[in-house]
Amino acid sequence: MKLTILGCHSATPHENKNPTAQLLEIKGHRFLIDCGEGTQVQLRKAKVSFVHIKHIFISHLHGDHFYGLPGLVSSFRLLGREAPLHIYGPKGIKEALLLLLKLSKSNMNYPLHFHELSSNQSECVYEDENVIVRTIPLKHRIYTNGFLFEEKIGLRRIDADAAQAAGIDKSQYRLLQQGQDVESNDGHIVENTKVTFAPHPVKKYAYCSDTAYYPSIIDIIHKADWLYHEATFLNQHAALAEQTKHSTAQQAAEIAKKAEVGLLILGHYSSRYKDLGLFVDEAKAVFPNVILAADGAVIS
Amino acid sequence: MKLTILGCHSATPHENKNPTAQLLEIKGHRFLIDCGEGTQVQLRKAKVSFVHIKHIFISHLHGDHFYGLPGLVSSFRLLGREAPLHIYGPKGIKEALLLLLKLSKSNMNYPLHFHELSSNQSECVYEDENVIVRTIPLKHRIYTNGFLFEEKIGLRRIDADAAQAAGIDKSQYRLLQQGQDVESNDGHIVENTKVTFAPHPVKKYAYCSDTAYYPSIIDIIHKADWLYHEATFLNQHAALAEQTKHSTAQQAAEIAKKAEVGLLILGHYSSRYKDLGLFVDEAKAVFPNVILAADGAVIS
Repeated sequence: MKLTILGCHSATPHENKNPTAQLLEIKGHRFLIDCGEGTQVQLRKAKVSFVHIKHIFISHLHGDHFYGLPGLVSSFRLLGREAPLHIYGPKGIKEALLLLLKLSKSNMNYPLHFHELSSNQSECVYEDENVIVRTIPLKHRIYTNGFLFEEKIGLRRIDADAAQAAGIDKSQYRLLQQGQDVESNDGHIVENTKVTFAPHPVKKYAYCSDTAYYPSIIDIIHKADWLYHEATFLNQHAALAEQTKHSTAQQAAEIAKKAEVGLLILGHYSSRYKDLGLFVDEAKAVFPNVILAADGAVIS
Repeated sequence: MKLTILGCHSATPHENKNPTAQLLEIKGHRFLIDCGEGTQVQLRKAKVSFVHIKHIFISHLHGDHFYGLPGLVSSFRLLGREAPLHIYGPKGIKEALLLLLKLSKSNMNYPLHFHELSSNQSECVYEDENVIVRTIPLKHRIYTNGFLFEEKIGLRRIDADAAQAAGIDKSQYRLLQQGQDVESNDGHIVENTKVTFAPHPVKKYAYCSDTAYYPSIIDIIHKADWLYHEATFLNQHAALAEQTKHSTAQQAAEIAKKAEVGLLILGHYSSRYKDLGLFVDEAKAVFPNVILAADGAVIS
């Protein structure tokens, strides 16, 4: 699992302060999460080939999370893309993109599939044999979802020496991988856990932006390896955070602590703060394992 | 008159290759012309205060000329703008922007005035006592206008020594500035041109992008001081230029020559070319006074 921060600043973009976008590499997928203005340039800087992006998840339709998408979709077209593109985002995203494409009279050379979201309950939006993506309903000024990206539990791993010593024929290995007890060559039942190791641990990434402090998400993101949680404000502006339905660094840390995540990644800083180190200080007072997102940073 | 090139590259944006946007300073105005993705960052780099932008002219609704506008309009709002903003562009631009604003549930704190264009004839879109802006209908794959920015002829300038020597009372000066003959203190008629200088010469800037080679524009842009004319291709790709309704550098130069402009500024280069010097070479063979636009360049 590898996360590239393409942009992690809030509101209005500046040079070297890009609005939100991330690329998550997990189980062979390259999932694009949010797409603020300038994301395609950030992708190029990060040397991400556009053809590998097949799924784009949009949290909400504020410009700093979304206004890079029309340009990216257009660039895909100009570059001759033929592979389908799946876009997951709030209801309305389809109307907006199709209107912009219609106005530019651009014939699409690849299929564009919209998966519009409107539920206030967590739901599965993507699933294959390796990974599952669920929404994390958030609390913001407009309808907003975070996304939970979770590897599926793989097969149990054969302990070849033990299996051989127990006299198990290789034809039985598939059943062992699936967790079943099997019969040995001499006819006795071998307990699965005696001859297998547990599957590789699964990785889990929770992306939560933008949102007010919202403990309802704790159950959904519980024990995620990494949690990206917005921290637009410091404690001194807690009232402003509440009013604008954003979080403080301390609130993000409280969520991280209660959800028992492995690592908290902060981002979406308001441009009013010069010293981002204060975000870490405030968060660490509550939850120790915290880092600051930075444009271009790679977490793996 | 001062022109800042914010972006002058075609199609898909790259680091240091921004899509089209320009800022024209003329007679106290700061007119934004086109607004490709990333324009607001380019404006910040050029240290242009957002509050001074009151009129935005959009040539056409292809993304590389337009997809920076929703973000800019949103940033104006976030920064607390109260002054009206006027947007001139093809029919459809209002629907697109209002839909995006509606989806973001953003209450506007400043008035947004749309001036939608649909005529195929040159028309005046803005006029005050100092400047007039007219459309330049272009020939592209979708409805497209260039824009002609023209200073108005000012008042004649008093030759104070001559006026005094001719015995003209200062109360008559306003009439002199307006070009009228006046009566001197001793009752004889003084010919205007004997006691005034001609008004300062007016400046004229013609912006033409995107367009195929289109001689119909020559009359409209005749004797412009500066002509920005797109040159997406070199001659070797003339067939592609015709097919995509773009121009070659040589065609841009032919327009410049026939229109007898002062300076030709080339831009909108296809990213396929590494050596932009070839654009100058091809253009100079036809028209000598030619320069290449470059992101961040200032022409004054």
